[in-house]
Amino acid sequence: MDDLRSEVLDFGKRARAAARALARMSTQRKNAALLAMADQLRASAGAILRANGKDVEKATADQLSLPMIDRLRLDEKRIQGMADGIREVAALEDPAGKVIAEWTRPNGLHISKVRVPIGVIGIIYESRPNVTSDAAVLCTKTGNAVILRGGSESIHSNVAIAEALCAGAASAGLPEDSILLIPKTGRDAVRHMAEMDQYIDLIVPRGGRALIETVVSYARMPVIKHYVGVCIAYVDRQADLDMAVRIVVNAKTQRPGVCNAIETVLVHREIAAPFFKKIAPILAEKKVEMRADPDSFHQLSALSYQPLRPARDEDWTTEYLDLILAARTVDNIENAIAHVEKCGSHHSDVIITRDVARAEKFLNEVDSATVYWNASTRFTDGAEFGFGAEIGISTDKLHARGPMALEELMTYKYVIRGEGQIRE
Amino acid sequence: MDDLRSEVLDFGKRARAAARALARMSTQRKNAALLAMADQLRASAGAILRANGKDVEKATADQLSLPMIDRLRLDEKRIQGMADGIREVAALEDPAGKVIAEWTRPNGLHISKVRVPIGVIGIIYESRPNVTSDAAVLCTKTGNAVILRGGSESIHSNVAIAEALCAGAASAGLPEDSILLIPKTGRDAVRHMAEMDQYIDLIVPRGGRALIETVVSYARMPVIKHYVGVCIAYVDRQADLDMAVRIVVNAKTQRPGVCNAIETVLVHREIAAPFFKKIAPILAEKKVEMRADPDSFHQLSALSYQPLRPARDEDWTTEYLDLILAARTVDNIENAIAHVEKCGSHHSDVIITRDVARAEKFLNEVDSATVYWNASTRFTDGAEFGFGAEIGISTDKLHARGPMALEELMTYKYVIRGEGQIRE
Repeated sequence: MDDLRSEVLDFGKRARAAARALARMSTQRKNAALLAMADQLRASAGAILRANGKDVEKATADQLSLPMIDRLRLDEKRIQGMADGIREVAALEDPAGKVIAEWTRPNGLHISKVRVPIGVIGIIYESRPNVTSDAAVLCTKTGNAVILRGGSESIHSNVAIAEALCAGAASAGLPEDSILLIPKTGRDAVRHMAEMDQYIDLIVPRGGRALIETVVSYARMPVIKHYVGVCIAYVDRQADLDMAVRIVVNAKTQRPGVCNAIETVLVHREIAAPFFKKIAPILAEKKVEMRADPDSFHQLSALSYQPLRPARDEDWTTEYLDLILAARTVDNIENAIAHVEKCGSHHSDVIITRDVARAEKFLNEVDSATVYWNASTRFTDGAEFGFGAEIGISTDKLHARGPMALEELMTYKYVIRGEGQIRE
Repeated sequence: MDDLRSEVLDFGKRARAAARALARMSTQRKNAALLAMADQLRASAGAILRANGKDVEKATADQLSLPMIDRLRLDEKRIQGMADGIREVAALEDPAGKVIAEWTRPNGLHISKVRVPIGVIGIIYESRPNVTSDAAVLCTKTGNAVILRGGSESIHSNVAIAEALCAGAASAGLPEDSILLIPKTGRDAVRHMAEMDQYIDLIVPRGGRALIETVVSYARMPVIKHYVGVCIAYVDRQADLDMAVRIVVNAKTQRPGVCNAIETVLVHREIAAPFFKKIAPILAEKKVEMRADPDSFHQLSALSYQPLRPARDEDWTTEYLDLILAARTVDNIENAIAHVEKCGSHHSDVIITRDVARAEKFLNEVDSATVYWNASTRFTDGAEFGFGAEIGISTDKLHARGPMALEELMTYKYVIRGEGQIRE
């Protein structure tokens, strides 16, 4: 067995033992630990910023893009933000031990379905060092041990943040191995984690396609992917055009680099002309490049829209994460739904219409994590849902779909109380 | 691409299209289809029994064990039983479209979490042909398309049953490809299914360790395993001894070949002598072989118990599925819980005690799918839970844990209704 594999296995073994102890910790103890973690993060700000400086220096030398370097960079304010975030999580209700359902059988057996921690969760992520804190904190709150494996760009920052959080947690009596960070950044460490189903109960990969592909192909345990968002807006022929413009502009431009921004707008043929006329000046002012099917291209070029390109096949399935919007004119709602089902990523899609029946048809027939009627797709977010915290947005269908918060980091068990019942 | 792979991919593609149509079918239509499936199963009894005759003949020629052949064999009564089972499922409430939770955000957005079908479910099983019917019926009820792949022993029976079910479903207007059976029994077909995550959303393997291992190592989609049950009873020092004897005898002997039967009894040292004295004659009469740790061995040999063997290490983790019971004497409840956590399979475990505090400690600290206080583990079963139907018992932690019924064959989506809200 090679050294790296045995090192990763050792992390797994320690996390499993910690998870057993952690599952028995009281709400009070876990919350005290979270507050201590927040304090320790503030107290270690100097060390964290020095470590972060090394990462930023290397990223600059490696000529990473400016947005990448910006996401990497920490300052006092961002550390304060992380610490504040921890205190907010401490204040949330503890999901552990909650009775989800209970009933008594005719034979007198009392069955309750009780929420319990999953056990050991592996989080594999890239780039932003604040994920180290967010993930560790949500796992601590839910009584799960966590094995973190961040990207190479932020390795020094991650190690420093994890050290502070561990010190805080341990000072409040939590098992030392509740929060573990694998300091190896090669893909082999990811593979060993993914194969270690005796110690890891769930893996959550957050990152690019190559990382997720590596995890999925090796994983023996459940994986909840945080994949691309090819989100789509459909402007129905009975849409309120002002509302349609407001929603499409917001969903595309308010923050184009995130997964719940839209990439495509579908427009009903009957209202295509007035819709494009109303939205064109606003999108043009925000410098949105349009990639249009022939009919929409015809409309937009008549308005002298710039920049404008004919859409190619791959435009319908591309997550631009940029100020680019694909546009297609459709003949009816059936074509719109068929497009969403075929080309979308089943993340967040919206119909804009005044017609209740067509709205309900869209809401029923589009099988996406979140389906909207007359609202921006940008609301697909744990905080906007009122969940108080979020580990990410699942693009998978099982266990967790859409915004993934505290409850989604839990499983359940059945507790059955009897008076000597046996099966005849 | 080899022929088998392209054949399996074609099954996947057809199932995916059927799933889209199926998800839109009304409750009425699905229930009408189930009744038609039951009728067609009865009408095809002759063809099914002829096909089954071939399987039984081959099994006999291959010298399979008598219990194996018995599980394989169909008769009029068993077919009637399958048809009756279908009618019972038709009468159950439709889980699709049920609102699990709903709330309104301060900005007026109305969010509802709605139960929807998973999509395409792959069921991989061995031996018993009635699984073909059970699985197809539960998937139809829940609006999921299903790809079935049964074992080679029952291939003729499976094909005949699936043909009858498909004919029934299609006669009631369900998509023809809602129920597909892959007639190839080699392991390669399993591998191709497991790799086909673009078409299959969930795989449920039911069978032996080798089959499950194959599925887990290739699967790119979620897998819900139906693995072994190493279930354990702990007889506490404050147990009602008559109740303890009744429960242990029931959990071991009422049906030893199933996963919720116990394989080990742990006995508190203080009551070991009277407990063994009470239970020994009953277990001996039922011809249960005991495999005992030194202390329990000492007690049982003093009672001249037969058959009796010293337990070896592997006895604590073996699923006997037979009239064999491992016995260990423990000093306290902590040792009992540690044994359960280390050696059990986290399926179903029980404490027998009059002491509420120790019962609650066991219920809290044992992390198994079902944890009992003073009742037989044999109740871990969909019907006994009142679920009305069961696709199996999950030994996994995510999505479904323990008895897996209609709700566990569903996922959810968020439906969000607004009046033009955008994100600031």
